[in-house]
Amino acid sequence: MSVPAKRITIIGTGLIGASIGLALRDAGYTGLITGIDRSADELRTALDRGAITHLAQSPEKQRAAISRADLIILAVPVLGILQWMEQLAPLVHHGQLVTDAGSTKLQIAEAARRLLPGRFLPGHPMAGKESGGAALAEAALFRGATWLFTPDVSTVVQAFEASATLHSEWRNWVERFGANVLDMPADRHDEICAWVSHLPQMVSTALSALLEDTFGNDADLRSIGGRALREMTRLGSSPFSMWRDVAHTNQAPLAHTLLMLEQRLQHLRENLRTPALRDEFSKANDFRRSH
Amino acid sequence: MSVPAKRITIIGTGLIGASIGLALRDAGYTGLITGIDRSADELRTALDRGAITHLAQSPEKQRAAISRADLIILAVPVLGILQWMEQLAPLVHHGQLVTDAGSTKLQIAEAARRLLPGRFLPGHPMAGKESGGAALAEAALFRGATWLFTPDVSTVVQAFEASATLHSEWRNWVERFGANVLDMPADRHDEICAWVSHLPQMVSTALSALLEDTFGNDADLRSIGGRALREMTRLGSSPFSMWRDVAHTNQAPLAHTLLMLEQRLQHLRENLRTPALRDEFSKANDFRRSH
Repeated sequence: MSVPAKRITIIGTGLIGASIGLALRDAGYTGLITGIDRSADELRTALDRGAITHLAQSPEKQRAAISRADLIILAVPVLGILQWMEQLAPLVHHGQLVTDAGSTKLQIAEAARRLLPGRFLPGHPMAGKESGGAALAEAALFRGATWLFTPDVSTVVQAFEASATLHSEWRNWVERFGANVLDMPADRHDEICAWVSHLPQMVSTALSALLEDTFGNDADLRSIGGRALREMTRLGSSPFSMWRDVAHTNQAPLAHTLLMLEQRLQHLRENLRTPALRDEFSKANDFRRSH
Repeated sequence: MSVPAKRITIIGTGLIGASIGLALRDAGYTGLITGIDRSADELRTALDRGAITHLAQSPEKQRAAISRADLIILAVPVLGILQWMEQLAPLVHHGQLVTDAGSTKLQIAEAARRLLPGRFLPGHPMAGKESGGAALAEAALFRGATWLFTPDVSTVVQAFEASATLHSEWRNWVERFGANVLDMPADRHDEICAWVSHLPQMVSTALSALLEDTFGNDADLRSIGGRALREMTRLGSSPFSMWRDVAHTNQAPLAHTLLMLEQRLQHLRENLRTPALRDEFSKANDFRRSH
């Protein structure tokens, strides 16, 4: 008794939100897509690029776009998602589904249980770019990427059937985007993402900031740095606005991974001329062979 | 009174040596290129791919290839270069030029003054791949890359004219490879390369080794890691054989950069929820904008 979604509202029409809109179109979705964004420019770009079909700018239009939507997708940074969830709680009824694309999941999953029980599916596409904005959005952004969900089992069981149908419908769309869907508990999500996403980001930021302090506008450095330098500092371009929220909502797991890496670098530094250096390269080679 | 080189001998026909051979051909060099390598397979691959025209395997043939060459290019890891320089010293006469592609320059420049005064031009192409071997060699490997030279001014002045001509001829070939030539003192080379090449390598190795220890064959990690993880660990595939020599011959500058980064990561870890995090992202953004 599937009732396919005909109205989708995307809150946050930057890189991820607009890419979701384009991916929906590309995958054959023919219903309405209304965009909400605090930046009129981003909204306009998303509309011009065909990522949304309508935009809602006034508070009245935004409320209407929310209460009429079958599916609401939150694609703003994590603290923004948490704020939107408070606003959505009194507006979203059974039969509607809210999902998100936030980088951390534990605080969002907890807020979902409290504010939107049975009406929220926490999600996280492992895709992005170091620069944001609807102008860089792509329908293919999620192809081959993992899209994580951290559903609350007790909540899912309580869900009304209409919402459960939307659950599986949204999962189907995500698969049609070319993403690989994977479920896991929210706490495990945040721990793993600290290792595979947040730590690499912070290392690249720290390395870039250190090089900026050390060399500033040194012309030699600019001409010498090759692919290794470009690659290891690419994420240094990432916007603070997004990563502040990650650091805020995943502090303990991230601090743990940073401490572990500091100790590892110290070990390597103390063994630049001992056989222990070979062990580090050997383990690193193993990691790359199997991942 | 230019006497163009007609015989070039490349010692070490792996990724860099074979790429130099291919780049010479691509740039119009029509003379002989003899290859020397302790691996018969690498030699054969370099010959099959047209990177060399002849190979010298027996000690007699190697000696002949060295004493008859106008230009001898050392393209093995740094400690191997230092060993070869000892062997070349009694064989190489004025009118021949030796150059190299080693990753560190201070110890090589010192050895050159002692062993091959006026006959050695220390060089370092800032190009490579995380995997080695003649099979991956490319004529275009050096296009757009910086090729550093650390000539010893006092030695250059003493050089006989024939060798001086070979100096400029080799620089011309390197420019025809599409590389940007830059001269600097050997000690400054090693300090800058510690920052822009050796530190990024060691960070990637440490991160990869840490993830291997933490996750081993965990299937979740394998499917979740996105572009950020792949990129930040790509250099984890790099061979110990090359980097052992870098760590050995550039220990103090590299240890300094590692300590600086450890402190930077600690600072970041202690400020995950303070305004100092914004400063780090802002500096990192600045670095990326100007490099």
